[in-house]
Amino acid sequence: MRAEIISIGTELLLGEVADTNATYLASQLALLGLDVQWVSIVGDDLERLVDVFRRALCRSDIVISTGGLGPTADDLTREAIAEVMGEKATVSEHLGRELQALFQRLGRDMPPSNLKQATLIPSAQAIPNPRGTAPGWWVEREGKTMVAMPGPPGEMRRMWEREVVPRLREKVQGEVILCRTLKSFGLSEAEAGEMVGHLFTSGNPTVGVYARPDGIHVRLVAVAREHQEAASLIRDAELELRRALGDYVWGVDDDALEAVAGRLLMEKGLSVATMESCTGGLIASTLTDVAGSSAYFKGGFVPYSAEAKVALGVDGRLIERHGTVSPEVAGAMAEAARQCLGADIGISTTGVAGPDEVEGKAPGLVYIGMADSRGSSSLEGRYPPHRPDVKRRATVHALFALRQRLMTL
Amino acid sequence: MRAEIISIGTELLLGEVADTNATYLASQLALLGLDVQWVSIVGDDLERLVDVFRRALCRSDIVISTGGLGPTADDLTREAIAEVMGEKATVSEHLGRELQALFQRLGRDMPPSNLKQATLIPSAQAIPNPRGTAPGWWVEREGKTMVAMPGPPGEMRRMWEREVVPRLREKVQGEVILCRTLKSFGLSEAEAGEMVGHLFTSGNPTVGVYARPDGIHVRLVAVAREHQEAASLIRDAELELRRALGDYVWGVDDDALEAVAGRLLMEKGLSVATMESCTGGLIASTLTDVAGSSAYFKGGFVPYSAEAKVALGVDGRLIERHGTVSPEVAGAMAEAARQCLGADIGISTTGVAGPDEVEGKAPGLVYIGMADSRGSSSLEGRYPPHRPDVKRRATVHALFALRQRLMTL
Repeated sequence: MRAEIISIGTELLLGEVADTNATYLASQLALLGLDVQWVSIVGDDLERLVDVFRRALCRSDIVISTGGLGPTADDLTREAIAEVMGEKATVSEHLGRELQALFQRLGRDMPPSNLKQATLIPSAQAIPNPRGTAPGWWVEREGKTMVAMPGPPGEMRRMWEREVVPRLREKVQGEVILCRTLKSFGLSEAEAGEMVGHLFTSGNPTVGVYARPDGIHVRLVAVAREHQEAASLIRDAELELRRALGDYVWGVDDDALEAVAGRLLMEKGLSVATMESCTGGLIASTLTDVAGSSAYFKGGFVPYSAEAKVALGVDGRLIERHGTVSPEVAGAMAEAARQCLGADIGISTTGVAGPDEVEGKAPGLVYIGMADSRGSSSLEGRYPPHRPDVKRRATVHALFALRQRLMTL
Repeated sequence: MRAEIISIGTELLLGEVADTNATYLASQLALLGLDVQWVSIVGDDLERLVDVFRRALCRSDIVISTGGLGPTADDLTREAIAEVMGEKATVSEHLGRELQALFQRLGRDMPPSNLKQATLIPSAQAIPNPRGTAPGWWVEREGKTMVAMPGPPGEMRRMWEREVVPRLREKVQGEVILCRTLKSFGLSEAEAGEMVGHLFTSGNPTVGVYARPDGIHVRLVAVAREHQEAASLIRDAELELRRALGDYVWGVDDDALEAVAGRLLMEKGLSVATMESCTGGLIASTLTDVAGSSAYFKGGFVPYSAEAKVALGVDGRLIERHGTVSPEVAGAMAEAARQCLGADIGISTTGVAGPDEVEGKAPGLVYIGMADSRGSSSLEGRYPPHRPDVKRRATVHALFALRQRLMTL
């Protein structure tokens, strides 16, 4: 079946916002075995929206749109679909009540303009959106399917995964496509490519190597007539990949590094505390992105000056002798975090986020400290000297090091 | 004049590579005063390429494409343009010699397939590409212009900046487009829409209202014959917008809330410290995203348990009496952060990030505390009960509150 993606919003045409939704949906539709032949980006203009929806309906079986479902006058996706289908949109009492209830829960009055988010046409069913006020539209007629989702990526992705994929799967028949992603840290994209590139010459499964914020991902895609056959192709290939990549692999598929580390902490009944300088709280924040992290995360400190570090128990003479940005201070900070908060494990960072040098040390240099009952240690990271990258990479590196330490405890 | 962007490559439709070229070109074309009405992504398929180029030539004055200029059989951009123009492509002797010379410099034999990169049609001129083997095509006929550039972003951007922009500038006359974005916090998208929607009925400037992670953005776009006229349209409209939105506006264009708050702290010579519970370090991390923030950010705490809060100076009786998630404890935490780190201002959060209730309070409820030499106070936030959203929204809310407090100091 042919699928087509339409991204809606004048801001996309002005290049103010990158259209990440289309890339995400394209990769998702490929996994469903759907052939995406067109992606269009179109502005908030009724005539052009009608034009692009009409053409999409002619040439594709499934049309997926994002954006234009907001409450304001320039949100025109519902109007465009209604016009293309030749149907009239009316307010659904049920959706109206749900919207009212949502505003009540948020303790706010509902502006009258929001009511247009409660409209439907006869061929449309509402798709629930627990993260926002705009439900999606699932429209089916004469063998064609249109799915309209909101533009904010968080709202769209949840709706896609929970609501749209299961319904689309029922429509797609014939081939089974299975996917498996191994996530690694510590290799460059080229290194990972050389380690795994020679393994899969048959073309099924295919292998793709991608650089991502949390490391290098290696993705396998297998195609077969039957689920069992595809699963067996993936299983064999994953074993080979794991042999090739060894300890660099930290997770699969939807795993997040902070959740992987969190699971290990729970399993082993251990707790962790942080003391961050150059990462500025990003490690603590990332650890606490995991629901239930209060079970093992004792807390964190962000002592952004030498005095604050000393006040928390770091030996001032170490700082004088080795400088704030040093392996010795990193180790002492990790131990101080552990002591102050009564945690089993302490993690720390001290480094140069940039753009300026610190103590004659160049941006991108970070020491990561780790302490447990057996003592403290540290490791050195060197990252591209761009402030947000330094913070992000050092955080991923520290969480990867935490996972490695936990594997030995 | 109307412009249109075509991104070519099956890998884009599979979602394996994000189409960063289209976003870049869209923002560039807007700066040239060209009105981008369409972006299409299309695979390596001759029939579909011909279709999309033909339609683009009908509806747009300038068509910019990237991709499909490589040497392999699936690189079909040249073939598609030749077919649409009804012209025949032949090898240019001059381009052929240049290509040979390039391979010689690289010390390699030229594969015969590369010769197709040396072809032209009569309406096309070659655009030099010092970074790769594929020259671009500049095609002009009957008032329409087509520009075909290679897909690799490094090659494309150099060609765009050095070769294409100067030539396009000569063609673009008349219109100047200017943009201005006001960023606000505290309003819903619909509320902002209702406050500003009635202001601009002339259609110039146009006004767009967008929900973003850091609040509601209102964007003005003005079109005029002269820069001065466009600037004056924008200036007048901005004044009206600011009157309508009042204190909700915290910044413009590229401003980030943490940088706005940071500038105010610097100007006033004040420092800040944080004590975060439910935001888990995200406020500290966001504040330290700003280069030079060590000048005013003293540090932060993430006491993730009641005991840790008490150890840092929060009165345990307050917690017993009002619960951890309470305005009283939020105020005390802000004051404790200030005292512990010797800062002028303390900010705190305590709330329920979810997914589970805490002390009988529902996910999404957060108290933000603020303390300075005049005392402490707190405010209540209610956000959609999705853990990452709660953390992010509470962080934006706290930074906005910090900015407001700083405006009064």
